[in-house]
Amino acid sequence: MASPPKYLTGDKAAINDFIDKFDTFLFDCDGVLWSGDHVFDRVPETIMMLRARGKRTIFVTNNSTKSREDYLQKLSNLRIPCEKEDVFGSSYSAAVYISRILKLPPGRNKVFAIGEAGVEQELAAEGIPCIGGTDPNFRRDMTPEDFQALADGTALDPGVGVVLCGLDFHINYLKLSTALHYLRRGATFLATNTDSTLPMHQSLFMGAGSIMIPLQYASGTKPLELGKPSQAMMDAVEGKFQLDRSRTCMVGDRLNTDIRFGIEGKLGGTLHVLTGVHRREDWDKEDAVAVPAYYADRLSDLATVT
Amino acid sequence: MASPPKYLTGDKAAINDFIDKFDTFLFDCDGVLWSGDHVFDRVPETIMMLRARGKRTIFVTNNSTKSREDYLQKLSNLRIPCEKEDVFGSSYSAAVYISRILKLPPGRNKVFAIGEAGVEQELAAEGIPCIGGTDPNFRRDMTPEDFQALADGTALDPGVGVVLCGLDFHINYLKLSTALHYLRRGATFLATNTDSTLPMHQSLFMGAGSIMIPLQYASGTKPLELGKPSQAMMDAVEGKFQLDRSRTCMVGDRLNTDIRFGIEGKLGGTLHVLTGVHRREDWDKEDAVAVPAYYADRLSDLATVT
Repeated sequence: MASPPKYLTGDKAAINDFIDKFDTFLFDCDGVLWSGDHVFDRVPETIMMLRARGKRTIFVTNNSTKSREDYLQKLSNLRIPCEKEDVFGSSYSAAVYISRILKLPPGRNKVFAIGEAGVEQELAAEGIPCIGGTDPNFRRDMTPEDFQALADGTALDPGVGVVLCGLDFHINYLKLSTALHYLRRGATFLATNTDSTLPMHQSLFMGAGSIMIPLQYASGTKPLELGKPSQAMMDAVEGKFQLDRSRTCMVGDRLNTDIRFGIEGKLGGTLHVLTGVHRREDWDKEDAVAVPAYYADRLSDLATVT
Repeated sequence: MASPPKYLTGDKAAINDFIDKFDTFLFDCDGVLWSGDHVFDRVPETIMMLRARGKRTIFVTNNSTKSREDYLQKLSNLRIPCEKEDVFGSSYSAAVYISRILKLPPGRNKVFAIGEAGVEQELAAEGIPCIGGTDPNFRRDMTPEDFQALADGTALDPGVGVVLCGLDFHINYLKLSTALHYLRRGATFLATNTDSTLPMHQSLFMGAGSIMIPLQYASGTKPLELGKPSQAMMDAVEGKFQLDRSRTCMVGDRLNTDIRFGIEGKLGGTLHVLTGVHRREDWDKEDAVAVPAYYADRLSDLATVT
């Protein structure tokens, strides 16, 4: 049983000690910095304060629909200080994994992607050829000819060695069936992340994991996840930023992704903020999926120290 | 450990004994009578022979996309003798369950359906109001307004008390998100069946279970299944036909649906035919999901006795 997390809100001395313990803060975005398009109060000032104190601030998101460039734009619009290298998304993590770890052989180096433009842009940035994705030819009903052409293989590209599944708002029977056929022919199965739900407008919609799960169910194969809490993502973050894990803190609102990501990555600390999905009672029970080292009501409580 | 199944092919005395043991035969269709549109050799003659010997022949299918009327048409086209009452599909099973067992209160008696025309037709035949289904207004991309209207509830019909999920070749993000919102508001979750795959053209496509599984994953709730091997389906079959279970035999090609359905329903017997999904080695192992009482190479082997 982990020791109970330390509550930081309103405790200036504890906040100062907390900040001094770390050189790098990894932030989840949705539920921590903002909810949808609504940025939480005094978040930009909090990030600025940390940077003024010499801390590195990195944004680590499981949202696969946006590229790093898209995220940079969003952070800048919300006046949160950031450079492109400070953004780490699950599509980028997947692209890095494919290009640098998988090292697909020539002739089997294409990716069949289920996802939005963010996935395509990150694959392109790593020089990985990709089909599917936002191609309008896959955004249509399945025809009797499609059933036949998938079954006999004429609809399949022999160069595809990977099926990568992210969040796709245009999911359909044709894309799922095409992906299933590539998997049955031996393609490697990757997922940007497996979050079951997507929080939006104070409600929950289908997350990337809910787009992927039909393929897992039909193929009987689990994908390798590249987003939080997968340590493939932590390894990629560490490789890029040369972090000292003992001096790094993960900040998030979900125990099963963010806090678990930090704990399994053996980071120096984890901070849970109560502005997102999980509540105090979620860790305050016997079978909690992960227990943070610190918690605060909101991120901007860190700024009360200045 | 169940005793090994008795092999009937070529053994006239055993076949005669087998047929004499039963008054009613329940047949799975795909993989037993036909594969896709290809009817297996001498299947019509075999059904005719059983009927000539005074047996009742009932067709029990998990295919939710077709209504009983559609099935009757298909059976007739293939020269398999049948009346409409002899067909029992998972959509009909679901409709019967909703109208006769659930007995929804007025004001909460509508069904939000994910599925094709077969589901709608069977619900209509039982007088159950239904939205979703093949409605073109749900066969489109999700808009930003849809996210907002689902979140604030204005897109939801307060009369919906059930989400029924079957096989839908037009599945999309809008339908899944709408169903998720009904489930989160307390709608009863039903599935016509949970087969992960759909065999077609000697290949496998997404089955009804693979259309349903995102809702189970995102909502954290398992649906009640109405198709094989669910005993809700057996109860409905028994209720309709007044069968003597001890004098009834289930004939099928899948251990996890057909044979399990017969065994758990405490039928007098189960016959596995080797023209479909499962093979001899699938029951001939320690952890077999179900072991049939009889097996034969093909259904028409029963007709060799005459």
